[in-house]
Amino acid sequence: MRVAILGTGLIGASIGLGLRERVSGIYVVGYDRNRQAADVARKRKAVDEVVFSATDAVREADVVILAVPVLAVKPLLEEIKGVVRPDTVITDTGSSKAEIMRWAREILPGHAGIVAGHPMAGKTEFGPSAAEETLFDGARWVIIPAVEASPEAITIVTNIATTLGATPMIMDAEEHDAYIAAISHLPMMAAMAMFSMGRASEAWPELSVLAAGGFRDMTRLAGTDADMAYDIAMTNRDNIAHWIDRYVVALQELRRRLVDIEGDDDFYRLLSATNMDHDEFKFGKLGREEKTHGDRIEAAGVSDYLAGGWIRDKYNEVMHASEDRLREMDEEERARRRI
Amino acid sequence: MRVAILGTGLIGASIGLGLRERVSGIYVVGYDRNRQAADVARKRKAVDEVVFSATDAVREADVVILAVPVLAVKPLLEEIKGVVRPDTVITDTGSSKAEIMRWAREILPGHAGIVAGHPMAGKTEFGPSAAEETLFDGARWVIIPAVEASPEAITIVTNIATTLGATPMIMDAEEHDAYIAAISHLPMMAAMAMFSMGRASEAWPELSVLAAGGFRDMTRLAGTDADMAYDIAMTNRDNIAHWIDRYVVALQELRRRLVDIEGDDDFYRLLSATNMDHDEFKFGKLGREEKTHGDRIEAAGVSDYLAGGWIRDKYNEVMHASEDRLREMDEEERARRRI
Repeated sequence: MRVAILGTGLIGASIGLGLRERVSGIYVVGYDRNRQAADVARKRKAVDEVVFSATDAVREADVVILAVPVLAVKPLLEEIKGVVRPDTVITDTGSSKAEIMRWAREILPGHAGIVAGHPMAGKTEFGPSAAEETLFDGARWVIIPAVEASPEAITIVTNIATTLGATPMIMDAEEHDAYIAAISHLPMMAAMAMFSMGRASEAWPELSVLAAGGFRDMTRLAGTDADMAYDIAMTNRDNIAHWIDRYVVALQELRRRLVDIEGDDDFYRLLSATNMDHDEFKFGKLGREEKTHGDRIEAAGVSDYLAGGWIRDKYNEVMHASEDRLREMDEEERARRRI
Repeated sequence: MRVAILGTGLIGASIGLGLRERVSGIYVVGYDRNRQAADVARKRKAVDEVVFSATDAVREADVVILAVPVLAVKPLLEEIKGVVRPDTVITDTGSSKAEIMRWAREILPGHAGIVAGHPMAGKTEFGPSAAEETLFDGARWVIIPAVEASPEAITIVTNIATTLGATPMIMDAEEHDAYIAAISHLPMMAAMAMFSMGRASEAWPELSVLAAGGFRDMTRLAGTDADMAYDIAMTNRDNIAHWIDRYVVALQELRRRLVDIEGDDDFYRLLSATNMDHDEFKFGKLGREEKTHGDRIEAAGVSDYLAGGWIRDKYNEVMHASEDRLREMDEEERARRRI
C-alpha cells in the first residue's frame, strides 16, 4: 500500500512513524512545502521517500493524508484533483470539518474516497522533530465520511486510526465542529485571553514572576501555533463564538455566587459538587451515552471493523442523517446543534 | 531547633520532609486533626513525632508552621495563643494573606514572631502521601512580615524558604492578594467555570468522550480541594471578582475580533503576537522589573540573608509602606491596588 502524507509536521510525521512501524508492506511518500520539514521526517524514518510536489506524491497513492493547517487543505485539493485516482482514499487531520467537507464536495464532486479525519491528539510542540509513533495511543479519532464515500474507503481510514492506537468515532461534520469548539477551540481561545489579560496588565512584572502552576497551566495553549489557531478560528468561528458566550455566562454565574454569599453553604456546595464531578471525569467516568457507545465498539471488535459490519451500520445511520441535514439545514437548526 | 507543623497535608508534610532531610539538628513535631494524615506523615518521615493537640505541638516550639486551609488559621491561632512563647516564630502557607494578617494582629497583638508565608508550589493531589521533599525547588515563596516582626523572625522564615529550594519574595499582604488573585485564584475559578459549563451541557456525553488535552488541561484545577478553594474564595473575593471581570472583558474582546474579521490580518497578528509573547514567557522571560529584582537577590546571596542586610533594607521598605497603608487605606486605594 502506497501512502502519501502531505504535510510532514507533528501530526503527519507521527502518522508516518506509526504506520511504517506497525504495517508491513507499506510505502510512505512525504511532501511538505517546507523542504526542511520533509527532510527531518525522512531522517526520523517517518517517510520512505520525499518528493517535491503534491502531485508527485499523490499520483500513484492508494491513500492520501492531508496533514496541514485547515486553510491549506483547499489549495492542496485544487492542486491534486487532476492527478488523484478516483478510488484513492483521501483523508485529513484538520480540527474543523464542515468547511473541509464543503471544499471536498466542490473540488472533487462525487469522489468515492473522501473520508475526513480528526485525530484528537497533539501537543504544543510542533514539527517533525516532535513526532512520536505513540502520539495517538488511547486517543479518539473522529471519522467523517463524505456522502459518496465507499465502505472500503471508510474501512481503510478506520483501520489507520486503530492501527495507530486510537478509537475511531464516526460522526458528521457539523456535529464534530460544535463539539470540538467546546472542548478544544474554546480552551485555546480562553488560554489566549487569559495570557493576554495578564501580559497587558501593569502588574505583569510581578505576575510573571509569581506565576506558578495555575496560570502556567491555564495559559499553555496560548502557545498554539498561530497558523493553526488562525485556520481553526476562521473555519469554525460561529461555534467558537457561541461557546465563548456560554463560558462568559458560566464565569459570571460563578462570580455572582462568589460575591453574593453571606455565610450560607451554597457556594461551598457548588465547589464540592464541581470537585466531585471533576474527580469522576478525571478517573474516567464519561457522559451517559459513552457506555453504550463503548460497548458497541468493544463488542464489534477489530474483525468486524475489517469485515465492515459495525461500520456499515454506523455509516448508514450517519449518512442518512447527513443527507436529511443537507436538505433541511437552516440557521435555526445550526443554532440548536451548538447544543 | 524545634519545629511544629500544624497540618500535615501535602504542604506541611513536604516542608517536614525537606527540613528533616536538609537541616541537621532539627526536630519536627506534627499535629493534624486528622490522625491518619499525621500518621502517614510520620511513616513518611516528614515529622519526628506526632502529638494530639495543637497546644502540645507548639508549647516548646521555636518555629510554628500553620499548613492548613486559610479559614482554619484563625481558630488555630486562638487555640495556641495561650501557650506559644513570645519569641516563637509563627508562619503559615495560606494562599490569601490580608485576612490572615488581620487575625494575627487581633489574636496575637504585638507578637514579634509573625511572618506569614506563601510557598507558590503545589499540585492537585493532596494529603501527606503526595508530599515531596523537592516540592518547593525553584518556586517563589512570598514572605509577609507583620509590622512588629523581628528581623530574626524574618530571617528564619526566609531561611526556611531558601533551604527548601525556593526564592523568597517579601511583599505586603494586600499586594500579595491582588497578584495571587490574578495568577492563581482566577485560574482556579476559570477552570471550575469551564468544567461546570461542559458538565452541564446536554452534549456532555459526547464532550466528555472527545475531551482531549485542551479541555483536560484547562479544567484540571477544577480538581482543587473544595475546602481549600472555599477558604481562598471567602478570604480574597473582591480581588477574585475583579479579575473575573477583567478576564470576561478579555474573552469578549477576543470574541469581537474573531467575529468581526473580514479577510484582513488583524486577528492573525493578534494570535501571532500572543504566541510570541507566550513563547518568551514559557522560556523564562519575565516582566521588566524582575531583572532588577533578581539581580538584587543574587547579589545579596545567602550569607547576606543570614546577616540580614538585604532583608533588613527590604523589610524597612515594606514596613514603611505598610504602616502608611494602614493609615491611609480606603476603598479607592484598594481598588487601585488590584491594578
